[in-house]
Order: sequence, then structure tokens, then C-alpha cells
Amino acid sequence: MHPADLSTLSFDLMSLGQALQDGAVTPEDVVIEALRRIGDDPHHAWITVRDADTLRAEACARMAQGPAGQPLYGIPFAVKDNIDLAGVPTTAGCPAYAYTPATSAFVVQRLIEAGAIPIGKTNLDQFATGLNGTRSPFGACRNAHDPAYVSGGSSSGSAVSVALGQVSFSLGTDTAGSGRVPAFFNHLVGLKPTLGLLSASGVVPACRTLDTISIFALTADDAHRVFSVAAAFDAADAYARPAEPHGVDVGTLTAPRIGIPRADRLDFCGSAVDAQAFARAVDQARDLGAEVIEIDFAPFLETARLLYGGPWVAERYQAIRAFIDAQPEAVFPVTREITLGGAKPLAADAFAAQYRLQALRREAAQVWRQVDVLMTPTAPTHPTIEAMLAEPIVRNSELGLYTNFMNLLDCAAVAVPAGFVERPGARAPMPHGITLCAPAHQDVPLLHLARRWQAALQGRAATLGATGQPLPAAQAVTPAVPSGQLRVAVCGAHLAGQPLNGQLTDRGARLVACTTTTPDHRLYALPPVVTPGGQRLLRPALVHAPGDPSGRAIEVEVWELPAAQFGSFVAGIPAPLGIGKTRLADGSTVPGFICEPAALEGATDITGYGGWRAWLASQNGS
Amino acid sequence: MHPADLSTLSFDLMSLGQALQDGAVTPEDVVIEALRRIGDDPHHAWITVRDADTLRAEACARMAQGPAGQPLYGIPFAVKDNIDLAGVPTTAGCPAYAYTPATSAFVVQRLIEAGAIPIGKTNLDQFATGLNGTRSPFGACRNAHDPAYVSGGSSSGSAVSVALGQVSFSLGTDTAGSGRVPAFFNHLVGLKPTLGLLSASGVVPACRTLDTISIFALTADDAHRVFSVAAAFDAADAYARPAEPHGVDVGTLTAPRIGIPRADRLDFCGSAVDAQAFARAVDQARDLGAEVIEIDFAPFLETARLLYGGPWVAERYQAIRAFIDAQPEAVFPVTREITLGGAKPLAADAFAAQYRLQALRREAAQVWRQVDVLMTPTAPTHPTIEAMLAEPIVRNSELGLYTNFMNLLDCAAVAVPAGFVERPGARAPMPHGITLCAPAHQDVPLLHLARRWQAALQGRAATLGATGQPLPAAQAVTPAVPSGQLRVAVCGAHLAGQPLNGQLTDRGARLVACTTTTPDHRLYALPPVVTPGGQRLLRPALVHAPGDPSGRAIEVEVWELPAAQFGSFVAGIPAPLGIGKTRLADGSTVPGFICEPAALEGATDITGYGGWRAWLASQNGS
Repeated sequence: MHPADLSTLSFDLMSLGQALQDGAVTPEDVVIEALRRIGDDPHHAWITVRDADTLRAEACARMAQGPAGQPLYGIPFAVKDNIDLAGVPTTAGCPAYAYTPATSAFVVQRLIEAGAIPIGKTNLDQFATGLNGTRSPFGACRNAHDPAYVSGGSSSGSAVSVALGQVSFSLGTDTAGSGRVPAFFNHLVGLKPTLGLLSASGVVPACRTLDTISIFALTADDAHRVFSVAAAFDAADAYARPAEPHGVDVGTLTAPRIGIPRADRLDFCGSAVDAQAFARAVDQARDLGAEVIEIDFAPFLETARLLYGGPWVAERYQAIRAFIDAQPEAVFPVTREITLGGAKPLAADAFAAQYRLQALRREAAQVWRQVDVLMTPTAPTHPTIEAMLAEPIVRNSELGLYTNFMNLLDCAAVAVPAGFVERPGARAPMPHGITLCAPAHQDVPLLHLARRWQAALQGRAATLGATGQPLPAAQAVTPAVPSGQLRVAVCGAHLAGQPLNGQLTDRGARLVACTTTTPDHRLYALPPVVTPGGQRLLRPALVHAPGDPSGRAIEVEVWELPAAQFGSFVAGIPAPLGIGKTRLADGSTVPGFICEPAALEGATDITGYGGWRAWLASQNGS
Repeated sequence: MHPADLSTLSFDLMSLGQALQDGAVTPEDVVIEALRRIGDDPHHAWITVRDADTLRAEACARMAQGPAGQPLYGIPFAVKDNIDLAGVPTTAGCPAYAYTPATSAFVVQRLIEAGAIPIGKTNLDQFATGLNGTRSPFGACRNAHDPAYVSGGSSSGSAVSVALGQVSFSLGTDTAGSGRVPAFFNHLVGLKPTLGLLSASGVVPACRTLDTISIFALTADDAHRVFSVAAAFDAADAYARPAEPHGVDVGTLTAPRIGIPRADRLDFCGSAVDAQAFARAVDQARDLGAEVIEIDFAPFLETARLLYGGPWVAERYQAIRAFIDAQPEAVFPVTREITLGGAKPLAADAFAAQYRLQALRREAAQVWRQVDVLMTPTAPTHPTIEAMLAEPIVRNSELGLYTNFMNLLDCAAVAVPAGFVERPGARAPMPHGITLCAPAHQDVPLLHLARRWQAALQGRAATLGATGQPLPAAQAVTPAVPSGQLRVAVCGAHLAGQPLNGQLTDRGARLVACTTTTPDHRLYALPPVVTPGGQRLLRPALVHAPGDPSGRAIEVEVWELPAAQFGSFVAGIPAPLGIGKTRLADGSTVPGFICEPAALEGATDITGYGGWRAWLASQNGS
């Protein structure tokens, strides 16, 4: 590709990936362009940029293999410098702590094996302690939109490098909000996955019970694509968990129930523009069709306070205990102060806090019965670097108000851009952002909702990061985790409103389509039976009659329910009916009712009514 | 009942329950007899015995209602004095700590509502800290078989009162082994349920993350009956968990895989009689049909050491922190020393130990892939009270060697009697005992295995507690928790050894019966299909043909698999087959294959072969 064209090529994963797969650009072109865009890194986004020769050699090796079977062929990415990349120092933002790993972190290795090319290691709040991006001996990381503003942290450079279009995506880590706050401040999507789905092998721990690798990308779909490659169970990580099916995809529901904190629980640290921006975001949620529900935010806020006010900071101390005890002066001053604070709480305090957390989890579970998703501002407001440095602990704590609780409560979350606001003294409109949050294993539905959210953004809000590039046209993304749902076509007593419909709804089933079979079916009314409860029950038999010219398309409903519940549903169906396959009008086939042949003797052919309800109506009328 | 007969009546729950339900004895008779048996309590088993007038009034109130709907009608039971009984002081073994609760603990209340009558509160190692029974200002509790020997603890009085036949069952608590060690020492069954299944509401905590109420009974079936009543999800207990289906009932398998520690990991504290007794127990396991497998016991032993050597003792401090800080002298000396030790570890130490535990859980999970159940001695040996008091901390720690790990590793366990041994200086043969242990939610299978175990005991070993009463004839007990398994009859490509059998075994299915259908069936061979994998697949259609004189009984296999896996199995069956009901030769009906009517056109009638395998053999031969 001509250098001029390359310089305007959007590095969003979908656009760049297409260009690479098509051969319109080569991995070698891309790494050279990435280095050009990084330049001398005035934002302090990077700690180590791999040298040009190494990157070109790696790119050429990829080109020799070709793109086949490489979903991330030639895609440049950045790695937060508390995650191992083989042969490159891991500093965790602390030069005295640095070591050079022989192998890459489990997740990094998976991305490389999928064709992605790591450009280097990014700046961070030292030891991932902070949400602001100024706590680094490598220089305060500067916001991609205005260098006077904080980048957010601790995954500061990972966010800024993506927002500036230097790489297509990046890895951060997220314990208290480090993968979400920088997404807000740089106009990105930040996926904080369910704890344990992305391996922690090869990651410098902050709070081991609460850490996860996170993903920054320019679009929700891009984050999803990276997540699909990165997520795999790692038996060597004691905190790894297998992905679980998410059930109903609330991200695709016509009217997802979105919870927001009651107005009196919202805190914007006095910033009117942030309050207004969140109010607009609530309007946008309604425009998407959501049912917006005010929830009791108290248990979430109390949990958030537990994280920094409570004993979990002891995990930060434990993570670098030998190092900080031996060389306290090697640690960044504010980081040292916070971390050594973790040496104070007693084990008894830690247990007391865990008891309280357990109770708060129970309270939060009540909220999750009322809503599918929780929507909050990602942070109360966006401070300048100057304001942050003036009060580094207080200002930082404020940033975690809406993020601190999510790992403690075992939630998944996606931070998404939500337009631009005018901030005092900023040289340009600055980003705003909200976070969508749901219980563990709802990553894919959240990404689907985030995609809808992003697609609804207009104007400047619909541009990518700080690149000015427009949001690309959407393409389907194969879900990273299957839903675990099954569908069943029903045609009689299980239809909505009919006597056995509760056997579906009691199992969490939802109606997903009202349609008909292919035209080659017959419908029979079986002789009535009396249920064990004494009820006289009428049931039909739907019969496939290929080649029968008097067959008809029969009315059916398609319901979706958890696969884990489907077995007991099937086992509860008395003879002569059972579950085989139903051929639908659209040509697809789904599980549905079939009937034993012998039962049709003595049954009444009601094909002519076209459906069970029509026949029932005729019986009631007679 | 005549007092002479009453005095020889076994108080095992089944025998006494039958007599009460039949009216052969009345609840009033029973409470009077219970008080007579307790007498002046020379064993120091009781802290509070309710007065005779109160108990008689309560018994008479029960009699006025009658036994209907009261599974525990009139059954006397004992409550460890760290569990609330309304209107009776809860001392936790510490008079200065005592309070009188207005309501009973959740579990106690359920038992009372089922008709059981609490006789009083039992002695314990103070604050449930100890495994020996001597740590009480109410006097060292004495063993039911020889008062010179320890009773075991901390649930000392609860065990002794059952072993002496004063009550039918009792509640203990179990954190490190307090519900199992006393079962060994008094010749009882001790059920330590899965954490969270029995509510902790109204229980004085020891280690809140590891505590559970436990059940002492004379037989495994009695423990099961009590567990059925006691277990219910309590939303007010933050650590409560709903019961989960246990899957395959390993307790009823012909050859359960029973793991035992490798000989070099076994430690009997130098006691040859205990080593011999455990060797006999291993022989008994083989006699029951078990496949005995030596496992790597190292992760279990390391976990056991974590409990007392690590920071969990901080939970004991936290549980009574305000009390012991204010009145340290009110605490029993050895208990004070141990509990104040819990004020020392740092939160950082607690987290470090949790990280180690997480890794050990992963290691233990490997063992659970090799075995269904782990069998260990319940304790290494059985000391005298004199030996215990001479070295109260060391001797106590020894007792937890085989019990300390089970709650940390989230296991369920049942301690069962395993014969008698001659101990130095004992006035009578003394009990031995083993513990059967399996992962969480295996309570019912463990109880089933314990019932088989107990039924195989002979002679003195087959007597109940210290009562000399014989083990009663077994009666069926309705499982406290359903298995969550479903059965499916297969007749063709899913039979063992046939091409699609992997669709069953991959889902954890096990073959449970080889049988036939009722005689009124026909079997057809469908035209072969080619699978997506290119395989030519033959499948039969089993057709119910009522009244057809040429029908036959067709060979089928019945497989059992988790209900959660059954749905995807059904959904994966292509038309024209599906899952309806199969009528088996024994008159029962199970889910099984059926076929759409239209598919029988063009199919070959192979009924005469009596089964798919016979037809296949004829085809191969032709």
C-alpha cells in the first residue's frame, strides 16, 4: 500500500484485518506504520517499543506463513507492562523490579499464535496501583485527546496507544477499574471480562483474587474478536474458571432491563457536564428500547468502598512483599505509601471484610433479579494531570466510585464511549463514557449490547478513539462463548396461554418466534387424557407428511430455554409424544414435538384448521 | 409403654420413630425416659437439660397434634451449646459469653417443626475450638465407652448423649473435624454436610467460612433422615448455598472407586491398634466391592496443616474479638491462647494462604478424577483424658490430621464406625472409625455408602453407639437431595460399542440396565444416512405396536446421564428420530427413542431379530 494511504488507514481490527487478509497491506507495512505513528511517543504511552528490525523480521515470518487460519494475521497490539512478553523486560512500571521473561503470558501467547504482532509494552500506574496514569517513573501518561488531562490508569499506555491508532487493540489489567476508566478518558471500548476467563499466568499480580487481563479496542466487536482468541481455560492458573453459557442474550433483547442508580446515589464530584452527559446516556438507553429501572445502588457503593478502605490492599502488599520490604525506596512514592498501607490490616480484618462482602453479594443478587444490566458512568468526572498531582490519593479514589465493586461482586463489564463534553480549559471536546455491567459470564451479551450502543452513536461520538476515523460498518462476530440455549417448537398445549406453557416458563424459557412449519404437515387432535392432577388435557400430534398434497403449514411457536433445563422438559412429556425435529417455514429445523405412529389411530385430523388454537376456537364455538 | 420396656427401647430414630408413630410409646414417655437416662450426667455431656415440666408440657402439646405430617414426631434430640434454642442460654462453653436467644437457630426450628423435641444443650470445647472434649469449664466430657478416654470434640456432649442412647440424634458443628472425631470415639455416624446446606443462622461462629452444623446419629439412615429435615436454603445466611444434584450415586455403585492414602502417608501417632484397624477397614471396603486405589494424599495433608498453622485461626479471633479483647480472663486458658494467636497474622498472610489453598484445590481436583470417595481413618488414634491434658495443644492437633482439610477443600464427609479395638488400660473394647469423603454435594451418595458400610459390620461392631442395641433392619430413606440424573433407553446406534455411543459417554452417561421392551414392539432398519463426517450410518426405528400379535420384546440398554446434559443429547438427534417414552419389560417407562410415522415407509422390518445387534450380525454374515 502507498505510504499516504497507509497513513490514513484505520487500525480498527475489522478494517485493518480485512486489508491484511485481502493482501491490500502486509504485516510488514503495518508494523512500519505502527512505529511511524508512535514516533517519539510524546504521550508517554510506551515503556518498551520493540525495535524495527525485530518487528519487520517477525512480520516477514508471518507473511511467509500467510493469513490462513490466523484470525489476527498481522494485527499490531500493545501489552501492558505488567504482562509478560517473551524476551522483553516486564517492569510493572518499576525499573528496579524488572525481569525479562523467557515465555509470554498465556493470553499473549494465544494472540501471537493467532497471528497478532506485539509492538511493545505500555506505561502504567506502577504495579497497577492507580486509576489515573500519572503514577509512573516513565512519565505521567497523557490523554490521547488533550495531553493536559489524565489518561486514566492503571492501564494508561494500553488505552492511549489504541486511541491514537498506533495499534488495533491492547491488553490491560483490571482489578479496581484499570481496564475501564482509561476507556472512558480516551473514547474506547474496555472489556473487563468475568474473572478467571483470561488466564493470569504471566501477569504481575495486584490483588490476585480480583485481577483480570482486560481488552481495549476501538469497537465492541473488535473487543469481542480479541476476547474470542484470548479466552481459554488455563489449568496452570489456580484462579482460572471455565466459561459458562450465558443463557438468554440480554444484549439482543428488544427491551433489556437496564438498571441505573437512583439520582440521589449518583456522584459526579460536582461536575455538571458529567451529570448532563450521563442523563443523555440514560436517554440513549431508552432510545435503544431499554426499560430503564432505578435500582438500590447502596450495596454496590458499599462494596466499592470495601475495596480501597478494606483489607484487599493487603493483596497488593503481598504481591510485592519481599521486594518492597527490601527496597522501599525503589517504589514510586504514592504507590509505596498505598502498598505499605497493605501491611497493616490483620487477617481478622480481612475475614471480617469477606463476611461483609458475602452479605453484600446476597444484596446485589436481589438487584440482579430486577435488571439484566447495570449502567453507570464509568467514572464521576475527568481530572487534569495538574489536579491529580495536587491530591493524588483523594482524586484517584474518586475515579473508582463506579468501578471498584465489579470484581468484588464477580461481574463482567464493558466500558463504552458515550459522546463528547466540553471540559474546562480543554483544547478539544473530551470523551465521556458509561459502563454496562452484569453478573459473571455475561461477557458476550454485554458485548452485544455495547455493539448496539456504539452503533447508535452519532457524529463525533461515532468516531474511533482519538483517530477521527468513522465507526466501520458492522460485521457479524462469532460469539466467544455459546449461549447454552436450545430452541423448541411447540404446537399445542405448550403454546403461550395454553395449559402446559408453564412447563416452559418455569424453566426460564422465552418466546422467540411465532411462525409455521413447512407446508407438508398434518395436525391431529389426540384423544383427551386426564392428567395426574385430574385435569382433562387435549393435545395435538404434528406429523410430517412429505409429498402429501393435502398437507399444510401448521402454526408453531419457537421457545428458547437453557439446555440444562431442556432434558427435564423432554423427560416430562408423556407418550405418545416426544421431541424430534420440526421443519420451519424458513427452511431451518429445530427440536419440536413428534408423535408415535400408533397413536394416530383414533386421532382426529384437524390439518384444515392450520393450527391448534384455530381448532380449539372451533370446538369452543360448537 | 411399661417403664421396664421403655428402659430397653432403642432410641435409634428409626425404631423409636416407628414406636411413636404407631403409638406404642408417647412423646411424654420418651422425654421422661430421656431424662432418666441422663440422670445426673456423670459424663458431663450436658450444659443445660430442660426441666421435666417444660419437656412434658411440650410433649403433651405434640400429642395433642398427633403424628400426622411430623416425620420426627416426639423424637428427642440434643443441641450443641453453640447453636441457639429459644429461651435457653447459649453459652458456647463460656458462661461469661452466654446470652439467651429469643428464637431458635434456623435448623433447630426446622427440626422442632417436624416434631422433634430438644432435650437440652450439650457440652463442647469452648467456642468449638478443639477436637478433644476437655476444653470446657463445665468439665471435661467423658467418653461413652470409658470415662478415662476423651469424648472427642468440639461437639463432645452431642456425641456422648447419642452414644448413650439419651437422645435419638444431635446437632454438632464442624469446622476442623468437630462433627467427625467424636463420632469415631463414641461409635457413631457423624455427617459433616456440604458447607452451606445447613443454615448457620443462630450458630456462634468459629471460622465462618468453614463452619457447618453437623449431625450425630446411631445409623447412617438416621443421619440421612435428620439431614432431609434440616437442609433448606436460608436466604438470611450469606454463606448458604442451594443443594445441587449429586449425579451418579456412587454410594450405590457395585464397585465404587475408593481412594486411600498411600501407606507412607498414613500416620497413627505410633498406635499399632489403629494401624491394624484401618487395614481391616480397607479389607472391608474391598469386601463391599470397592476398587481401592492409593492416591496422592500430599495436597490433603498440606491443606490440613494450613488450617491450624495458617491464618484461619484469625476467624476464631474475629468471631469473639470484642469479647476476648474485653475479658480475656473469661476464656478457658488453652482456648484463650489459641484464639489470641489469631490476632497475630496479617491480612497479607491470610491472602497468601488463600492463594496456596486455591492451588491445593486444583491439585485435589486431580485426585477426584481418579476416585469417587476418599476413605481415611477419622483420627490417627484415641488418647485418654490424662494424655490430652498433659499436652493439650499437640495432642489436639494430632486429632485433626485426617479431618482438617475437608471444609477447606469443600468436601462432604460421613464418619462411620469401624469396629472395636483394645486400647491400653481401657475398661472395655474401644471404638474405631473411618471417614468417607467426597466433593461438595455428594452428601446423599456418601450416606448411601455409609449405610452399606454399616450393614456389613458384624458382632459388637454392629451395635449402636455405646448402647449395646443391635443395628435395626434397614428401611428405605427418601434421598434428601435428588440425583439430577435422567435415564434413556437406547436400541440402535447408541448401544454400547455402537457408533453413536460416545454421544452418551461424552456426557458422563453410565449403563445401568440391559433389558427389553414390552412384547408389543416392532423394530425397523431405516435407510442408511451419511453423517456430516462422511460416515455411513445405520439406525433403527423402535415402534410401539399395541395389539399387534407379531410384535416382540426388543433388546434395549438403559443409560443414565445428568439431566443438564440430556437436553443437548436430545437436540442432537436428527429426524426422523426423537426422544419419547419406551415401555420396558418390567412395566416401567423411561425416555427413549421414537420415530416419525412417515419414516417407516421404505424401512425394513427387522422385528424378527429381536434387537439391533442381532440384525447387524446377520448383515455382516451375509
